Amino acid sequence: MCDAWIVSIGNELLIGRVVNSNLAWLGKKLTYLGFNVRRGLIVRDDCEEIAWAFRLAVDSGAKVIVSTGGLGPTFDDKTSECLSRAFKLRFVVNEEALRLVSERYSSAGLEMNDYRVKMAMMPEGAEPLPNPVGTAPGIKLKVGETYIFVLPGVPSEMKAIFEEYVEPFLRKVGPEVEFFETELISKGLPESSIAPIIDKVMKKYPRVYIKSHPSGKELEAPVQRLHIQLSSKSKEEALKTLKEVEEELATLLSKEGAEVIRSSP
Amino acid sequence: MCDAWIVSIGNELLIGRVVNSNLAWLGKKLTYLGFNVRRGLIVRDDCEEIAWAFRLAVDSGAKVIVSTGGLGPTFDDKTSECLSRAFKLRFVVNEEALRLVSERYSSAGLEMNDYRVKMAMMPEGAEPLPNPVGTAPGIKLKVGETYIFVLPGVPSEMKAIFEEYVEPFLRKVGPEVEFFETELISKGLPESSIAPIIDKVMKKYPRVYIKSHPSGKELEAPVQRLHIQLSSKSKEEALKTLKEVEEELATLLSKEGAEVIRSSP
Repeated sequence: MCDAWIVSIGNELLIGRVVNSNLAWLGKKLTYLGFNVRRGLIVRDDCEEIAWAFRLAVDSGAKVIVSTGGLGPTFDDKTSECLSRAFKLRFVVNEEALRLVSERYSSAGLEMNDYRVKMAMMPEGAEPLPNPVGTAPGIKLKVGETYIFVLPGVPSEMKAIFEEYVEPFLRKVGPEVEFFETELISKGLPESSIAPIIDKVMKKYPRVYIKSHPSGKELEAPVQRLHIQLSSKSKEEALKTLKEVEEELATLLSKEGAEVIRSSP
Repeated sequence: MCDAWIVSIGNELLIGRVVNSNLAWLGKKLTYLGFNVRRGLIVRDDCEEIAWAFRLAVDSGAKVIVSTGGLGPTFDDKTSECLSRAFKLRFVVNEEALRLVSERYSSAGLEMNDYRVKMAMMPEGAEPLPNPVGTAPGIKLKVGETYIFVLPGVPSEMKAIFEEYVEPFLRKVGPEVEFFETELISKGLPESSIAPIIDKVMKKYPRVYIKSHPSGKELEAPVQRLHIQLSSKSKEEALKTLKEVEEELATLLSKEGAEVIRSSP
């Protein structure tokens, strides 16, 4: 199994000052790339916590770890240093990263200072990933069989580095399957009446995963979004299966009195 | 230290179909109640994963664990069963919970079925928390010195149970400190120029935590929100300290050429 882990670093996430939209964005990307996103770990700006998260994911056999946060110039941006400590690697100025950071500041007429040099410090053996939007480069590091990608927490910078460098790389090393999904809306039946129908259809199609998401009130005006998912090497086969499952669900739900809205004709 | 952990359960969070706003909401609540929100764990609808998360938090000495998700009637709602397994407790029909669930359905003219009874099954010794909005009750369970609260994933249900039952309880058993914060906006200085100023002020006020959040572009139009935080038993002392810190930051930032916007006068 090709497991991916997401590590989100930053007190602001845990004290609820920022909603972790990065994790959802990365989760969707990694899922479509065929990875099984196994766990998300959210930790404080604390070296032991950060090192714990990276080590746990590597020890659990993750193929890919993507972290966000803690790459800037301030005292509590310490992901790179803690990553070095986690795997007992020297924490050094990366010449290529230094060049990237210096260029950014000199083109803005600013001198380098210690806080700017800090953004070019990485574990020995790491590769900097240019940041098309901000100043701190991302980091790529291989530990054993695990690829670690360390990205900034600012969403625009994180997304730019992921799409430009991480995604093309993962297409090469990742699993060969792709992720397919469709959705069906059921109105008028409570979730507890739909549950046996989902059970029945999932038994018939064991590779398909159906999850119901209640959005109305269970008893007064029940609305369920049924999310139907499948990973497959063949697009044709996947779409055919999804269509069959949708068909079968729609028939069974209508028979119980639900109004069914299908996303595909 | 009074540590709180948040456990978010559900594949939809990891595949990025849903943004985990519950975690931010709970993080803010727990922080204001004086808890140190130490970690967030996001796991799949899988019994081993769910049990791992609860056990890790208990073994790490968490005072409080709040989980969301996996309490409904469908096959993949298994938080309650996995919580039982995690601590080797019998998984039984809770009579009080059964009464709550039955009342809900009978008032809507619906019979009980296996999927509805399932929502009344809990670890032996657990206490059901009535759900003012939906049908599945929350669960309160004490394991060793840790209080575990298991809440539904639907935000309106989660919030209603937390505010009605969990929050009043935590006010009694939680730490005596409260959380205070303020914010200051700096325009025109890159984060790497602000970093030494934050260092200086935090050294002078070691109990205060200052975190900078970049929102403009580091080099073109840099805007930093400086979030200033402090936990304290005394509101008066806390507000006085926050004001001093804000004052000092504003002076130092202005001296470097920043435009400073303060939230308090």
